[in-house]
Amino acid sequence: MGRNLKDRVCIIGIGWTAFGEHFDKSYEDLVADAGWAAINDAGITRDQIDAAWIGTAFPDAGVYKGRSGMDLAEPLGLFDVPVVRVSNYCTTGAEAIRGAVNSLLAGESSVVLALGVEKLRDRSPQESIVKMMVEMGHPLYQKGFTAAGTFAVYASRQFVRYGVTREDLARVSVKNHENATLNPKAHFRKAVSEEQVLRSPMVADPLTVMDSCPTTDGAAAVILVRAEDAEKYSGVPVFLKGMGMSVSSGWDLPYFDSAYDLTSFRATRVAAEKAYREAGITNPREMIDLAEVHDCFSIVELLTYEDLGFCEEGEAKELLRSGATRRDGEIPVNVSGGLLSCGHPVGATGVRMVCEVVEHLRGTAGERQVPGARTGLTHNIGGPGAVASVIILGKEKDT
Amino acid sequence: MGRNLKDRVCIIGIGWTAFGEHFDKSYEDLVADAGWAAINDAGITRDQIDAAWIGTAFPDAGVYKGRSGMDLAEPLGLFDVPVVRVSNYCTTGAEAIRGAVNSLLAGESSVVLALGVEKLRDRSPQESIVKMMVEMGHPLYQKGFTAAGTFAVYASRQFVRYGVTREDLARVSVKNHENATLNPKAHFRKAVSEEQVLRSPMVADPLTVMDSCPTTDGAAAVILVRAEDAEKYSGVPVFLKGMGMSVSSGWDLPYFDSAYDLTSFRATRVAAEKAYREAGITNPREMIDLAEVHDCFSIVELLTYEDLGFCEEGEAKELLRSGATRRDGEIPVNVSGGLLSCGHPVGATGVRMVCEVVEHLRGTAGERQVPGARTGLTHNIGGPGAVASVIILGKEKDT
Repeated sequence: MGRNLKDRVCIIGIGWTAFGEHFDKSYEDLVADAGWAAINDAGITRDQIDAAWIGTAFPDAGVYKGRSGMDLAEPLGLFDVPVVRVSNYCTTGAEAIRGAVNSLLAGESSVVLALGVEKLRDRSPQESIVKMMVEMGHPLYQKGFTAAGTFAVYASRQFVRYGVTREDLARVSVKNHENATLNPKAHFRKAVSEEQVLRSPMVADPLTVMDSCPTTDGAAAVILVRAEDAEKYSGVPVFLKGMGMSVSSGWDLPYFDSAYDLTSFRATRVAAEKAYREAGITNPREMIDLAEVHDCFSIVELLTYEDLGFCEEGEAKELLRSGATRRDGEIPVNVSGGLLSCGHPVGATGVRMVCEVVEHLRGTAGERQVPGARTGLTHNIGGPGAVASVIILGKEKDT
Repeated sequence: MGRNLKDRVCIIGIGWTAFGEHFDKSYEDLVADAGWAAINDAGITRDQIDAAWIGTAFPDAGVYKGRSGMDLAEPLGLFDVPVVRVSNYCTTGAEAIRGAVNSLLAGESSVVLALGVEKLRDRSPQESIVKMMVEMGHPLYQKGFTAAGTFAVYASRQFVRYGVTREDLARVSVKNHENATLNPKAHFRKAVSEEQVLRSPMVADPLTVMDSCPTTDGAAAVILVRAEDAEKYSGVPVFLKGMGMSVSSGWDLPYFDSAYDLTSFRATRVAAEKAYREAGITNPREMIDLAEVHDCFSIVELLTYEDLGFCEEGEAKELLRSGATRRDGEIPVNVSGGLLSCGHPVGATGVRMVCEVVEHLRGTAGERQVPGARTGLTHNIGGPGAVASVIILGKEKDT
């Protein structure tokens, strides 16, 4: 049995904080800001919410908050309903949405809140995720093999196998930073040149600082209801068309499987296949009007073009060079500025992407609006390569 | 809309490790032991599982494992399906089951695994949860106000208000330790006398060491399917009748609400009301044949008698003194030995309780079998008092 998700659940409210450094706001402030924005956008009252999910990936890399549903319930005063915390590395935000969707379809709840939040800037980057990963005794991180290092290996492999160049990586960063100049909530809102990216300090060869997303605070929230109930609420509904999540053996796959050639993320492919099947997407490049994909490092956006079927394997560099993924191209990718410019408050990112796509489908994305967008996609990959999520959203119910 | 859970989902496989000190087993070993036991008990193959949930509450209080679905997927080799981690303090295990149930009812999956695991003994108790709570800047823990201290306040209040005595607290511990002598998987399997409990070292007046559950390693797992599919599998089905979860403002409630009198946990009452409504339980004392309740401290079992409606407020001590909650009583509570004897590997506890009740409903609980048990209940409360879960299980479908 496959879940028949298409057009059964809709998003009627969205809200998110600016992404950036929020030294003046606590974790609870971020929860309240995003949560109340979504509640108000949906035109509901707090008391109508009968279940909620909170996604935070790294409580101990930040402010020791986000361990339980209480860290959502208390800032919003949302009591006497089930509230649970989920975590799954970089798909954490998408998992909050998945929990909410399953609850609605199970009939457990009728109006649900899914919120992702991460506060990482209160500790220095050296003190936060990397330190925690070393402490947890991860076999790669202990040897200094960080996220940047892990993804750099994929970039090097692409250089050799498909002729991707450092300039191609820089082009991803240039495109996404240019998009972010139109996004008032992005962490970085300045255009950068290819030259600047190439000359920025090397983090893990061939990835420079500007090939890498920053460490960021932020929160994002959505309110969901069953599609049949949409007309009861004033919030403009956007419909879920498909959703896929998958776990692969990411971190270790290169070491487990001697045939693995570091050119693709299996988790993304499995998640996309499920989401496309539910949504009836047979030709992603033609049928999807915009995509927010997980460009934690520039190379990941390129690999993801192929894993999502926007082009064939080995052709990502041509798709990029053609301009097809620019804001005015055939299939705009990361119109928001992506993780490279918005930053990556881990638990918030997947929800922020959904909020971005909803804005475009509603036609309310302002200066960065993708004209006439009817179908959008969000994608996350984390743990490097182990967990992936793909969500498809549509402006209208299919007839 | 209320979810109509009754008789729609069943448990066809259970498995759990012995609870105790597992210095010879890694977190992954515990996951594999409980997971494979449940898979084998259900008579399925691993490849039939199409989604899974892992509950771990305190990765950083133990072994830095249990942050994502990967920590379930890798030990079991369970790839290409969604696997997510949930956490909600002491209801974490129950939340893994709730996620699995919602997925089945949503039609997202057909055969699901819910597994709870915690490995706490590899760090000394002083280095683990308490230290972590202090580091997270919790306003109570920072002042040395630990879980034992928080629950001790409830005990003191019961002494004054309802005439509960230290001997009553000791009676809970004596009863549960006696039960544990028949449970080969309990952490402590020795009977203790009232005198021993009363003379054991004071932790937080009036709670002694033997009024408190130990720090324990363990894992527990269940396999669930929709009830309509039960006959496809060889595993003996036990049916879910009702499930309630609720978040209250636990830790802080006494400070937020000046009328709060420390005699009840609102979260338990709200969760129980929902579970009872779904299950059609109108008279819990008569209709429930056994209950596993969250006796993290002896006083909590007493308060829970009242919150679950086994007796009126103020009457818990009489219910206990009457012997009604002994293994051979009218409504046996913590036949397994409870948290006081089994220990409390936080993420595992809620799932372990469900496994225990399933054994009794199947009639396979060995020496500690509650004869003729047809309806059982599990209960968790955590965060002290903030999050609660109640699950009702039945031997057969209602006609």
